[in-house]
Amino acid sequence: MKTITLLTDFGDFYPGVMKGVILSIAPGVEVVDIAHNIEPHNIFQGAFLLYNSYKYFQEAVHLAVVDPGVGGSRKAIAIVSTNYIFVGPDNGLLYPSACEDGIKKIFEIKEDISELVGVLSTTFHGRDIFAPAAALASKGMFEYFEEIDRVEKLELFDYSIEEGQIRCKVAFVDRFGNLVTNLKAEDVRAKAFYFRGIEFPLVKTYSDVDVGEPLALIGSFGTVELSVREGKASEITGISRGNVEINLEVVL
Amino acid sequence: MKTITLLTDFGDFYPGVMKGVILSIAPGVEVVDIAHNIEPHNIFQGAFLLYNSYKYFQEAVHLAVVDPGVGGSRKAIAIVSTNYIFVGPDNGLLYPSACEDGIKKIFEIKEDISELVGVLSTTFHGRDIFAPAAALASKGMFEYFEEIDRVEKLELFDYSIEEGQIRCKVAFVDRFGNLVTNLKAEDVRAKAFYFRGIEFPLVKTYSDVDVGEPLALIGSFGTVELSVREGKASEITGISRGNVEINLEVVL
Amino acid sequence: MKTITLLTDFGDFYPGVMKGVILSIAPGVEVVDIAHNIEPHNIFQGAFLLYNSYKYFQEAVHLAVVDPGVGGSRKAIAIVSTNYIFVGPDNGLLYPSACEDGIKKIFEIKEDISELVGVLSTTFHGRDIFAPAAALASKGMFEYFEEIDRVEKLELFDYSIEEGQIRCKVAFVDRFGNLVTNLKAEDVRAKAFYFRGIEFPLVKTYSDVDVGEPLALIGSFGTVELSVREGKASEITGISRGNVEINLEVVL
Repeated sequence: MKTITLLTDFGDFYPGVMKGVILSIAPGVEVVDIAHNIEPHNIFQGAFLLYNSYKYFQEAVHLAVVDPGVGGSRKAIAIVSTNYIFVGPDNGLLYPSACEDGIKKIFEIKEDISELVGVLSTTFHGRDIFAPAAALASKGMFEYFEEIDRVEKLELFDYSIEEGQIRCKVAFVDRFGNLVTNLKAEDVRAKAFYFRGIEFPLVKTYSDVDVGEPLALIGSFGTVELSVREGKASEITGISRGNVEINLEVVL
Repeated sequence: MKTITLLTDFGDFYPGVMKGVILSIAPGVEVVDIAHNIEPHNIFQGAFLLYNSYKYFQEAVHLAVVDPGVGGSRKAIAIVSTNYIFVGPDNGLLYPSACEDGIKKIFEIKEDISELVGVLSTTFHGRDIFAPAAALASKGMFEYFEEIDRVEKLELFDYSIEEGQIRCKVAFVDRFGNLVTNLKAEDVRAKAFYFRGIEFPLVKTYSDVDVGEPLALIGSFGTVELSVREGKASEITGISRGNVEINLEVVL
Repeated sequence: MKTITLLTDFGDFYPGVMKGVILSIAPGVEVVDIAHNIEPHNIFQGAFLLYNSYKYFQEAVHLAVVDPGVGGSRKAIAIVSTNYIFVGPDNGLLYPSACEDGIKKIFEIKEDISELVGVLSTTFHGRDIFAPAAALASKGMFEYFEEIDRVEKLELFDYSIEEGQIRCKVAFVDRFGNLVTNLKAEDVRAKAFYFRGIEFPLVKTYSDVDVGEPLALIGSFGTVELSVREGKASEITGISRGNVEINLEVVL
């Protein structure tokens, strides 16, 4: 596979170091940034964004690191699925994506792989373990990999709908202040939602309401989003982070 | 054309998804990020920054998305100019650049092109329409394109100069707090400017004033910039966004 | 050399313009972002981060720009070292890295090189001088380069240890709020540090303390870091910038 994607909560700098390691081991591979501003340690958000991006690549090694347990006892893993290879920590981050694509094999990555980098820290396995693992995997080399038979799970679409009340999650607040929920389009039957005293009419697109007005729509993730046309739903609701449970009142 | 550039107001994540779509349709193309932190919905700023970057590429498909009208009635367009192809929404964003380079042909992009991606949202045409359009255009394939004969215009250098007063715009506030205006060097005859009670002497370079002192100079955009040496003009003027009209008092 | 890395304090947009210049002069070269959010004008931090990333690339032209003296009298230089070529301003930024790798030759870059770009500003030598210089260097062409015999120095690991007191520097505050110091592992003999009234026990990894508790460890830079497990040391210490001197009290 000639493409390695990166999705992390590392922000600036650290991903650049990982690229150096990758290109040293697998020269000629194409490294593509998906996201580096996942909220720090927000595994759920990382899993949600990986799930909503991995499939737009034709074939790739998807290297994802949101890893509050780095240096502790969690495993480093690689999952070979039907079309992709996922590399990252075994904390649920990779699971929803790999599961949807169809899991073929699961490997634990041995710490010895860090000998390819020449350093093993307790804080930056993105550089010392995951980057060399992704580079090797892209070349079809699984030398430091040991097959295992289980993986940590994580459920992205775990919500409850009853008697006009939906309890779901905001997964991601994007740069436009849109609250992207995990509530799937197919589970929604509503004319509007009430949230924190504000009515969000369910419309097709932003221009169905006036500038500055709140709205709900089925967004590009295939889930409900709460928005304000050319404004910020994050500001009027006070929600500015992902992985937050919310109660929506349904207006039928 | 082997290079596709990206300029958007999407911040993190969304551009990564677009790269997946582009590379799936046009494998081997080189995707280059120009900017993703255009202020949300700030078409003028996007147009200004595209105008000041497109020409530094030798040949490229320039894919630009600042698109408050997404999902509404604005067209999706591609403009073939002398050296480049510009792809984006028809809201003026592409116009100043394409116009300067010399417009050859204008196309409307049909929504059917989203069948190459397999999804058509009302909120993320960057993924569903513009990314596949740029990918096809880079391969010289214009199948989902229909020639049209007009395009939305936008004027970047619309300012007034009279009796010691200049009314122009701050187009971009950069990371150093410099206020980059749209006021062209050739229209300036001044020893200094007064703005909000502060004198900005017009000098050649930062080191012509002491550290911490305000100054004006002709910056890398070929326009007037208001700065503070190793400080932030944005802080002393209270201007932190682009597309803001300002009045400069001219000292001759 | 087929890779050119970029490390700057430019944030968004400006690096995109530099990529256009580079790819126009050296088509086919691979441009890799290391970091663009170095704190504005923070030469020490830039030098520290370059020093901790350059070596993870196999061979590369490392183009680094943190350049408060742009447009003034500081030289533009290129340093050829054993495995790399470093390009940037002569203000110490490149020195620790080039020195570690082994300096072979030092060149001053003549301003005439800007004729390859067609513009010479006093504010953006990243575009007008350094980008074309890196592009030429990657092709082994040193036409606008003139050999010189001295370079500005900068010391990254200048700290004092005496009588239970260490005076060192925070070099970098990362996205997780970790305070990365310049204090090398080999110079540390301690059970804990006191800083601003807070005890930071020196442990091996984050999971050695409870969530929310402060700790110190030897981080991925090989130096002491002050952290809070799944929290932010920057918040409890009030230190949010790099290149800040601190006093650590040593508990043996």
